[in-house]
Amino acid sequence: MSSQKTALVVSAHSADFVWRAGGAIASHVKQGWKVKVICLSYGERGESAKLWRQPNMTLEKVKYVREQEARAAAEILGADIEFWDIGDYPMRISDEILFKLVDVYRELQPKFVLSHSERDPYNFDHPLAMHAAQEARIIAQAEGHNPGQKIVGAPPVYSFEPHQTEQCGWEPNTFLDITDVWDTKLRAIQCMAGQEHLWEYYTRVALQRGVQAKRNIGITAKRNIQYGEGYMKLTPAVVEQL
Amino acid sequence: MSSQKTALVVSAHSADFVWRAGGAIASHVKQGWKVKVICLSYGERGESAKLWRQPNMTLEKVKYVREQEARAAAEILGADIEFWDIGDYPMRISDEILFKLVDVYRELQPKFVLSHSERDPYNFDHPLAMHAAQEARIIAQAEGHNPGQKIVGAPPVYSFEPHQTEQCGWEPNTFLDITDVWDTKLRAIQCMAGQEHLWEYYTRVALQRGVQAKRNIGITAKRNIQYGEGYMKLTPAVVEQL
Amino acid sequence: MSSQKTALVVSAHSADFVWRAGGAIASHVKQGWKVKVICLSYGERGESAKLWRQPNMTLEKVKYVREQEARAAAEILGADIEFWDIGDYPMRISDEILFKLVDVYRELQPKFVLSHSERDPYNFDHPLAMHAAQEARIIAQAEGHNPGQKIVGAPPVYSFEPHQTEQCGWEPNTFLDITDVWDTKLRAIQCMAGQEHLWEYYTRVALQRGVQAKRNIGITAKRNIQYGEGYMKLTPAVVEQL
Amino acid sequence: MSSQKTALVVSAHSADFVWRAGGAIASHVKQGWKVKVICLSYGERGESAKLWRQPNMTLEKVKYVREQEARAAAEILGADIEFWDIGDYPMRISDEILFKLVDVYRELQPKFVLSHSERDPYNFDHPLAMHAAQEARIIAQAEGHNPGQKIVGAPPVYSFEPHQTEQCGWEPNTFLDITDVWDTKLRAIQCMAGQEHLWEYYTRVALQRGVQAKRNIGITAKRNIQYGEGYMKLTPAVVEQL
Amino acid sequence: MSSQKTALVVSAHSADFVWRAGGAIASHVKQGWKVKVICLSYGERGESAKLWRQPNMTLEKVKYVREQEARAAAEILGADIEFWDIGDYPMRISDEILFKLVDVYRELQPKFVLSHSERDPYNFDHPLAMHAAQEARIIAQAEGHNPGQKIVGAPPVYSFEPHQTEQCGWEPNTFLDITDVWDTKLRAIQCMAGQEHLWEYYTRVALQRGVQAKRNIGITAKRNIQYGEGYMKLTPAVVEQL
Amino acid sequence: MSSQKTALVVSAHSADFVWRAGGAIASHVKQGWKVKVICLSYGERGESAKLWRQPNMTLEKVKYVREQEARAAAEILGADIEFWDIGDYPMRISDEILFKLVDVYRELQPKFVLSHSERDPYNFDHPLAMHAAQEARIIAQAEGHNPGQKIVGAPPVYSFEPHQTEQCGWEPNTFLDITDVWDTKLRAIQCMAGQEHLWEYYTRVALQRGVQAKRNIGITAKRNIQYGEGYMKLTPAVVEQL
Repeated sequence: MSSQKTALVVSAHSADFVWRAGGAIASHVKQGWKVKVICLSYGERGESAKLWRQPNMTLEKVKYVREQEARAAAEILGADIEFWDIGDYPMRISDEILFKLVDVYRELQPKFVLSHSERDPYNFDHPLAMHAAQEARIIAQAEGHNPGQKIVGAPPVYSFEPHQTEQCGWEPNTFLDITDVWDTKLRAIQCMAGQEHLWEYYTRVALQRGVQAKRNIGITAKRNIQYGEGYMKLTPAVVEQL
Repeated sequence: MSSQKTALVVSAHSADFVWRAGGAIASHVKQGWKVKVICLSYGERGESAKLWRQPNMTLEKVKYVREQEARAAAEILGADIEFWDIGDYPMRISDEILFKLVDVYRELQPKFVLSHSERDPYNFDHPLAMHAAQEARIIAQAEGHNPGQKIVGAPPVYSFEPHQTEQCGWEPNTFLDITDVWDTKLRAIQCMAGQEHLWEYYTRVALQRGVQAKRNIGITAKRNIQYGEGYMKLTPAVVEQL
Repeated sequence: MSSQKTALVVSAHSADFVWRAGGAIASHVKQGWKVKVICLSYGERGESAKLWRQPNMTLEKVKYVREQEARAAAEILGADIEFWDIGDYPMRISDEILFKLVDVYRELQPKFVLSHSERDPYNFDHPLAMHAAQEARIIAQAEGHNPGQKIVGAPPVYSFEPHQTEQCGWEPNTFLDITDVWDTKLRAIQCMAGQEHLWEYYTRVALQRGVQAKRNIGITAKRNIQYGEGYMKLTPAVVEQL
Repeated sequence: MSSQKTALVVSAHSADFVWRAGGAIASHVKQGWKVKVICLSYGERGESAKLWRQPNMTLEKVKYVREQEARAAAEILGADIEFWDIGDYPMRISDEILFKLVDVYRELQPKFVLSHSERDPYNFDHPLAMHAAQEARIIAQAEGHNPGQKIVGAPPVYSFEPHQTEQCGWEPNTFLDITDVWDTKLRAIQCMAGQEHLWEYYTRVALQRGVQAKRNIGITAKRNIQYGEGYMKLTPAVVEQL
Repeated sequence: MSSQKTALVVSAHSADFVWRAGGAIASHVKQGWKVKVICLSYGERGESAKLWRQPNMTLEKVKYVREQEARAAAEILGADIEFWDIGDYPMRISDEILFKLVDVYRELQPKFVLSHSERDPYNFDHPLAMHAAQEARIIAQAEGHNPGQKIVGAPPVYSFEPHQTEQCGWEPNTFLDITDVWDTKLRAIQCMAGQEHLWEYYTRVALQRGVQAKRNIGITAKRNIQYGEGYMKLTPAVVEQL
Repeated sequence: MSSQKTALVVSAHSADFVWRAGGAIASHVKQGWKVKVICLSYGERGESAKLWRQPNMTLEKVKYVREQEARAAAEILGADIEFWDIGDYPMRISDEILFKLVDVYRELQPKFVLSHSERDPYNFDHPLAMHAAQEARIIAQAEGHNPGQKIVGAPPVYSFEPHQTEQCGWEPNTFLDITDVWDTKLRAIQCMAGQEHLWEYYTRVALQRGVQAKRNIGITAKRNIQYGEGYMKLTPAVVEQL
C-alpha cells in the first residue's frame, strides 16, 4: 500500500464539496495527500434552480451540466471524484449504496472524513449524507463485514459548514487556514456557473472564518491568516501533547 | 524571554491538579515544558474529611497537611506550585485575586490552560475556579489592562475531568496518552494521604480513558496506550492540516 | 390565483388538529383565510381506546366514526379536510404519500404550516408527521421537482402543542389569542365523542395559555386575552420592524 | 396471570445485556422476578473481532459461538433469552420484527424495560434497538393493535450504560446497587470468551458506579455499596412520596 | 435525634411554597413527616401587585399581610415556617444568609429538599433561591464547616413547578399524587388573598398534572389520580430495584 | 406621555450598538421611533487595542476618543445616547447601576429591548450587560419598586449578533431588513476609527444576513433584501395571526 495519506469527502450534491470543503481539499492535495470526493447526487432537482429556468431543460441536461462543473472544480482542486447519481430532494440511501461507501473506506483507508452537518432544517439530504458517511465508517471497522479485507481504523469525522450555521446546531471547533490555497478554491468555485450568487457568499464566508481563525490564535500571533474554513470535529482527538 | 513552553493549571483545591491533570503535567514537563499550578484553596473545609475525623484537628493543621501533600505531589510531577489560600466551601473570588491571576497569565504566557468543568452540581468551587481562569485570560488579552505589559494570545482552555462526568455536562473531546508518565502520576497521587479511597478510583479512571483513547485511534493503530486522561477542549483549534 | 390567504395543517391522527390547532384554524377562517387540514390517519389503532371498548368493534367502524367526528369538527371550524388513511401505530410514510403532500403545498401555496412537535417520546407518529410536513415543504421549494409547477416560498413552520410539552422539548415562542373563537373551538372539540376526557383537559390548556399570553404582553396591556394556543415557531421571522 | 413481576431487556447484540445490565438482571431474578432478554442479533459482524481473527471462521460459526456464550451467561444470571438473528452492522428492523416485539410486551407485561442509549456515535445498532423498544411499547399500549389482547400499561424505560457515556449524551440518573449479585454478574461476563479485554473494563465500570452510588446516598449512609450499575431513566416516575 | 423524617422547602417569596409544593408538604405531613419552609422574602415588591394598588400602602404593610397569609397557609398544610425577610426584586443572598441556611440543613437533616427551577427568565429571584439551596447543601456536607456538627448526607433535590415551565427548561420527571390532600392544598391556596387570579390557575395545574401522572402509570393501572404536582428531580436516585 | 414609540439598547461597550444594532436603530428612527442607547462602558480597556498602541495614551484619552466616536455614530443613526462609564474587562454592575437602568425602563417605557447574547466565551462583559438588561426589566415590572411610578409591560427582549455566533449559542430567529438604512449604518460604522478592521467584517455580516433573510422569505418573494441584521428573540410573541 502506498504511503500517501488519503482523505474522503462525502458530498450530498455535486457542488457541496466545493463551497464547503474546497480549501481543505486543495490544501491537503498541495501537501501531498490524495483526496477522494463522492458526490451522492448532482443536486439536479433541488440545487439547480438557475438551470431549470432555462428553456427546454431536462433532468438529463441538468445532470450533465452539473457533472461538468463539478469535474472541472475537482480537477482544479486536485481531487478524485465519483458521481453516484442516487437522486436528490429527497435523497434516499439504500443498503447497496451504503455498502458501496464501505468499500470506498476499505480501499481508500482515509485519515479523515468530511461531510455535512448532522442537522439542517433547510436541507434533509445533507444530514442523510453525513449519516451514511458515519454508518459506513462504522461498518468498515467491523471485522465481520467482508472478512479478509483490511478494516479501517478510526478516521476523525468533520462536519463542513452548512449554509445557515446557527440553525443547524453547527459550531466550528476547528478552523483550517486556507490562505495559501484560496486562489485555487476561488477558481473551483467559479466553475459553478449555475450558482453565481453563491460565489460572493462563500468568499465572504472564507474571509469571516479567516478573521475568526486569526482571533483564535490570538492577535499577538505572527501567522497571517486571511481565508479560513470552519469545521466541526465530531470525534475525539487522541494526542501526546495538549 | 525564555523559549521554554509553558502551561497553567488552575486548581480549586490543593489536590485537584493531581487527580485530574497529573498526567498532563508530568508529560509536558518530561517534554521540556514549564507547568505552573495555582491552588486557589487547600480544600481544607470541603475535601479533607479524613483529616477532620482525627482528634484535635484545626483549620490550620488541615491546611498545613494539605499543603505538604500537594507540594510533594507537585515536586514529583515537576510542576511549580503556588497556594493562594482563598478559602473553600464556599469559594469566593475577589477582583484582587482575579487580577493576580491575570498577572500570572501575563508573566507565564501559557500555551494552554487547564481547569475544572464549567458545571458541577456536586461542587460549586470547581466551576467558579474555571470561570476565573477564563475571565482572567480575557482580561490578560486586553491592551488596556496594565498597558505596557505584554498581552497574552489565545491559549486553548481545557476542562479536566470532574468526579461525575455525565452530571457535569463534561464530554472528553481530547484524550491525552499518559502511559509514559503513569508511574509518575501514581506516585504523585499517593502523596494524598487524606484521600486514599481516591487512589484506586483515579487509577481506574486512567485505565478507562486509556482504553477509550485506544479505541479512538482505531484498533488497527500500532500505538499502545494503557493510561489516559480525558479533556474537554473549550476553545477552537486553528490548524493547517485536519 | 385567488388572493385568499391559505394555511396548511398536517395532522397525524384525525383529532389532533382540533385539540391542538382548532383555535388557529377558526381564527384564520374568521379572518378570511382558507385552511386545509390533512389527516394522515384516523388514529384508529392508537387513539380510539373508547371505541375499541365497545362490543363488536372493527377497524372499519372505528375509522368511520373517527372520520364523521373529524368532518363535523372541521365544518364547525370552517376548514377543508382530507383523510389519507395511511395507518397509525405505527405510521409509515412512503415517498408516494410524501409527493402527494408536496402536491398539496404546490397547489395551496400556504402562508404557514402547522404540524406536531419534532420530538414526542409518547407518540412516534407525531414527529413523523412533522418530519413529512417539513420534507414535503423543502421538496415543494425545489425547481427540479415537477418542473413547470409554481414552487412554494418559505412558509413559516409551527409546532402545535403536544400532550406533555416538557417531555417533548416543545417551548411555546408564540401565543395566539383565540378568545374570539373559543366557542367555535369548544364546539369542534365536543365532536370528539370518543375522547370526552380530553375536552376538559384542552379547555384548561386554552385557559393556561391565555393567562400566559396575557402575562407576555404585560399586565398593563389593555388587550383582554382569556383563551390562547401555544405554538413553537421553527423558522426564522423576516421583519421590517422589531 | 401469574403474580410474578417481569422485566424486559432489549439487547442489540448478544453480549450487550451482560456487560450493561447483568447486575440488574441477576438482582431482580434474585428478588423473584422473571427477566426476559431479547437479543436482536449476535453481533456477529461488528462485535466479534477476536473470533474473526481465527482461521477458517464463518458467519455461522461466529453466530454459534456467540449464542453459546450468551446462553451460558443468561443461565448464570437467571434470565430467559431469545435470539432473533436479525443481523448487525448495520441492523435493520422490519415492521414484522417490531410487531413480534409488541407481542413480547403484550405477553410478558413487563414492569420495566431496559435497552440502549438513544444516541451512540460509535454504534448505530444500539440506538436503533432502543428506538424499537420504545416504538413497540407504544404500539403495545394501543387498544386497536390486535384488539382483545391485554394492552400494556406504562412500564418505565431505562437506558443502560453505553461504552463511551459522555459521547452518547447518556447521564445516569439512577444507580442500582449490585453488590449482592456482583459475583454472579462477573461469572456471566466471563462467559464472553471473545471479548476478554472487556472483562476488566466492565469490572472497573461497576466499581466506579459503586463509588458514585455511595456518594449519592451520602457518606453518612450506612449502606455499603461496592458495585453498581448506572441507568438513565427516560420516563417520569409517579410516586406517593418524594 | 428524633426518628421523624424531615423535608426542607426553600421558597424565594412567601407564597411560592403554597402554589408549587403545597401538595407535597401536606402529603408528607399527613404521612408523619416534619416539613420546614424557609421563606427568603415576602415577595413584597415583586409579587404583591394587588396590595400595592390599595391606597396608602407601605412596604411594611405589604410584608405584614403577606406574612399573615403565608402563616395561615403553612398552618393548614402542617408545615413549620420561617420568614427571613432578605428582600426581593432583586433578591441578594449574602454569605451570612447562606450559612444560616447551612445551619438549617445541619439541624433538620432533611431527607429531601424542594426549591425553584434552576432557570427562569421571568423571575431572577427563583433560580437564585435554588442556587442557595444547593450551595448550602454542599457546604452542609463539608466536614470542615463547623467541625463537630453532624454533616448531612445527600438529600435529593427537586425543582418544583415554575409558572411557565417550558421557558424555564423545567421538565417534570416525577409526578406526586396529591389527590388525598388536594382539599388541604386548596384551602392553603385560598389564604393568598392578594393573588386570587392564581387560585384557578394552580387548580388547573394540579388537574393537568393529575391527568399526566395517570397517563404515566398507564391507563390500565387501578390507582385513581385526580390531582398531581410535578417535580424535576436534579439528583440521581440510588435504588435496589428498578 | 408622548405617543412616540420607543426602544432601548443596552450596549456593554461604546461601539457594540453600532456594529450589532445600528441597522435596527436607524430603521426604527426612520419609522418615527425614539431609540435610546445606554453605553455601560467605553470598552476602554478591552476593545480599544489600536488606541493603546499610540504613544502616551492614557485611560482618560481612550475614553474621550471612544465617546466622541460613539456620539458621532449615535447622531448619524438618530439615537439618544448615554455613557455610564462603569468600567470594562471586567465589567461589574452594582445594584445602584441596576436601579438606574430600571429608572430608564420606567421613564422610556420601551416597546422592545436590545442587548447582547446570554453567553459569550470570548467576552464576559457582554452576557453581563444582557443579564442586567433583563433583571432591570423584571424589576421595572414590579409594582413594589418605587410604588406610584408607572410600571413597564413586557417589552420583547432581543439578543443582537455576537462576534462568533456559534460559540455563543446565538441563533438568529429574527432577521431585520436594513437595506433601506444600510448607508446610514455604514456611515455610523465608519465613525469607529479605532476598529477599522471591523468595518469590512460587519459589512460582510450584513450581506450574509441579507442573503439569509431573502432565503427565509423564499426565493419567490418580491421583496429585495440586500442587507440584514440577525436577532435572537428571547421572549414569546403574542399574536392575533400566525
